[in-house]
Order: sequence, then C-alpha cells, then structure tokens
Amino acid sequence: MVRMPQEHVDARRRQILDAARRCFVGNGFHATSMQDVLAEAGMSAGAVYRYFKGKDDIIAAIATEALTEVAAAFEAHDTAQPPDLEAIVDLVLQVEQPPLASSRESARLLVQVWSEVLRSPEVAAQLDGIMAQVREVVGGLVARHQQRGVLPADIAPERVADVLIALVDGFMVQRAVHGHADPAAFRDGLRALMSATG
Amino acid sequence: MVRMPQEHVDARRRQILDAARRCFVGNGFHATSMQDVLAEAGMSAGAVYRYFKGKDDIIAAIATEALTEVAAAFEAHDTAQPPDLEAIVDLVLQVEQPPLASSRESARLLVQVWSEVLRSPEVAAQLDGIMAQVREVVGGLVARHQQRGVLPADIAPERVADVLIALVDGFMVQRAVHGHADPAAFRDGLRALMSATG
Repeated sequence: MVRMPQEHVDARRRQILDAARRCFVGNGFHATSMQDVLAEAGMSAGAVYRYFKGKDDIIAAIATEALTEVAAAFEAHDTAQPPDLEAIVDLVLQVEQPPLASSRESARLLVQVWSEVLRSPEVAAQLDGIMAQVREVVGGLVARHQQRGVLPADIAPERVADVLIALVDGFMVQRAVHGHADPAAFRDGLRALMSATG
Repeated sequence: MVRMPQEHVDARRRQILDAARRCFVGNGFHATSMQDVLAEAGMSAGAVYRYFKGKDDIIAAIATEALTEVAAAFEAHDTAQPPDLEAIVDLVLQVEQPPLASSRESARLLVQVWSEVLRSPEVAAQLDGIMAQVREVVGGLVARHQQRGVLPADIAPERVADVLIALVDGFMVQRAVHGHADPAAFRDGLRALMSATG
C-alpha cells in the first residue's frame, strides 16, 4: 500500500472533520448519519473510512479538538497576562480569543460533547484527560495570583480553578443555549460580583 | 368516555414521567425508545398514549419539570435569605436544596435538555420561558443586594444575574459531566474569588 504524505493525510482529515462539524452543529451528533458527513465532505465512503473508523471515531476527534481549543486558550493566557484582578476576569473570557472568539458553533459543540460524555465512556475518558490539563493550567494561574496577594492564600488553587471553569462553562451554556451571551456585559457582571462587600 | 379523577390522571402521568426519567438518565433522550419507557413504567402502549402524544411530548414535560425545579429553588431563596455577601454565595448553591439536593440525576437531565434545545424549537421555546422567569427572580435578588449596598449600584441587575446563573449552570456541568462537584469546596472557591483584591 502506498503511504500518503503526512500533509495530505492531515488535509483530508481536516476536510472530513470540518464537514462533520457543520453537520453536527446543524443536526446534533445523533441525527447526523455517516451518509450526511460523506455528502457534506463530497467524499466517497471508501475515502472517509480510510481516515476514521466510523461516526463515534469522528465524534471523539471533534470532542478532543473542541476541548483542546479551550485548553489552548487558557494556556495562551498563562504567559500573556500579569496577575491582577482584571486578569482573573479576563481569564474567564479567554473564550473570546481566537479560535473560539464569538463562535456560537464552538459553544454548541461543547454542549453536545457534554451530553455525549453521559453516553460514551470513550468520550468521557478523553474529556477527563483534557479537563485535568485545563484544571492544572488554571490552578497554576490561581497560585500565581495567590503568591501576589490578589487572591487569599488559605485555599487550594484547584478550588478557585473549579469556580473559574464553571464560569466559562456557564458562559458557554448561555451562548449555545440561550443565545444572549454578550462578553462585555458578562465581564461587567463578573466585575460587579467580585467587588461585593459583606 | 368516562372522565378519570384528576388525582388518578396526575398519578399516572407521574408514573410515566418517573419511568422515562430513569430511562433518559441511563441512556439519553435519543437512545431511549417508547418501548423502553413502556417497559420501565410497566404499562401498555394504550395507557401511556392516553397521557402523552409521544416521546417528544414526554421530553418536553421532563425538561419543563427539571427547569421548574431550578426556578423554584431560586424563588424559595428569595423570601428565605437576608441580603448579604454570604447569601449571594448561598444563592449559587441553591441547587443543593431539595428537590435538587445532591442529585447528579437532575444535573444530567439538565445537560440533556440543553442539548435537546439545539435540536428542538419546542423545547427551546419552553426553556426560554422558564429562563426568563429565573432571570427575573435572580435579577430581583441582585437588586435587593444593590439597595443594601452589598453590590455596586451602577450596573443593571440582569448583568450580575447572568453571571450567577452561569455559575449554577457551570456547577451543574461539573456535577453531571466531571462528577467531582463538591458544594462545600465550590462555596469556598467562590468565596475566595469574591474576596479578590485588585
């Protein structure tokens, strides 16, 4: 069997994943058939099955991509921002940076990935691995804020990281489901909440 | 046709919805057939179709119930708590009150409802109606905290309400998907975040 150059393999996989993404965003994972993906990609079954074993394999690849984008957004933040209060607020809205910027599509895919986790142990295992990375990156950011005295030091960084991740996930829910998530408004609301006095 | 007493109708609907809930939590909306629901409820097709037109009708009823529980938890809070900082933190963890207390099941149903919203305009319309109620209730609570000087007054209450709702939704995601959401730990993390100094 002739071995294809890696860039060709990557380009074909990209073509299939982009087509599948469009199908999934429009119809959801379950209502989308492999036939739909083939038609959208303009490829034959033989060509597609050379790159993916089936729909579950494509779903897993797309879930991994969607979550890796979120993880990458957090990691980019880690090196770019000085640790202060405003940086914490910005952290939550990292989802506004490329490649996630203003993408209701990414948010909708994420909601579908969560729902898929409830069904598929394979997707669940992949999500666990990526979320562990995200938690470590965000926990590291929180620890830097603690060292600088911006956040209280008497709490495990992971506790605060989980709240920040919940804010991002909740923002993604508003964007995907309610369709009214304005980042600037959300930023103002979060700033107000964080300046509450007891 | 003989008219059944209302309590009989209610009890039968309850029996069907409880059976469907168990099926949906285990297998998701899409992989569950009406046959599964009939078997789980121990009822005949004729009996079930007297109460529900089909699976979509049952999904809509369950989605409404799940969201009404969330709305009710917020409303109960409205009258029960004095407005202070700790009350805002508690507000987010209202999901720990009955009937949602410690219920990973409710969280998993909620994630499925979101995913269903992307597919079904009927479920989306119902969700919009209930979320508008939740937003009004939470916005009212925020306004009371603003009047008492606990929260800054120079921001629309809905902005802060959206952030609080995102926190609840994000907590539900952690509970449903990641399975590691400890309310006490989340409360500590949120308290730390809210005491950040810039």
